[in-house]
Amino acid sequence: MTNSLIDKINFDKNQGLVPVIVQESKSNEVLMLAYANRLAIEKTIKTGFGYYWSRTRNKLWKKGEESGNVQKVFEIKIDCDQDTLIYTVKQKGNACHNNTKTCFQKNLL
Amino acid sequence: MTNSLIDKINFDKNQGLVPVIVQESKSNEVLMLAYANRLAIEKTIKTGFGYYWSRTRNKLWKKGEESGNVQKVFEIKIDCDQDTLIYTVKQKGNACHNNTKTCFQKNLL
Repeated sequence: MTNSLIDKINFDKNQGLVPVIVQESKSNEVLMLAYANRLAIEKTIKTGFGYYWSRTRNKLWKKGEESGNVQKVFEIKIDCDQDTLIYTVKQKGNACHNNTKTCFQKNLL
Repeated sequence: MTNSLIDKINFDKNQGLVPVIVQESKSNEVLMLAYANRLAIEKTIKTGFGYYWSRTRNKLWKKGEESGNVQKVFEIKIDCDQDTLIYTVKQKGNACHNNTKTCFQKNLL
């Protein structure tokens, strides 16, 4: 992604973040939702691994930096109003810190 | 969803909203990301159609109320930290106001 394309992203005005839907490439399963700032997106593009901004720890976060459950990113898609991204990934191990494949477990209906 | 389950949702402290990933049931394709408040979720459960909170118009929004492209909601999933939902839907027509199936068109890599 060139700098001019990053410039088109509508980051949240208060926090400078954009939500990122993380989707498994082979199944289309949604694994998690996280947030990225400009730096996280640049690191993702440069390294090919999923980077985010941790809102709880207030720092750049490479997914799997502690657990080893890294994400190889194949594709970054942006939506029509440029305020949401999808990272299409190959997930090593489980995505959720609760040791489940995805963070979405409970059906509320 | 009982009231006690809605009470577990971590709505954003400032706006009272939660992001909702909208996913097509048969393909697992992500169609859009929108936001819901408590009222929108209650209306979705009660009617079986996708309701959201429009941040631009600052009002309750039934998806397709103008275009006719409504969403039948089969499932509402919540993630591990209870701050993101997935609506699993059958979409009538196109999801995007630009008349494409999904709002995610551009690949930024």
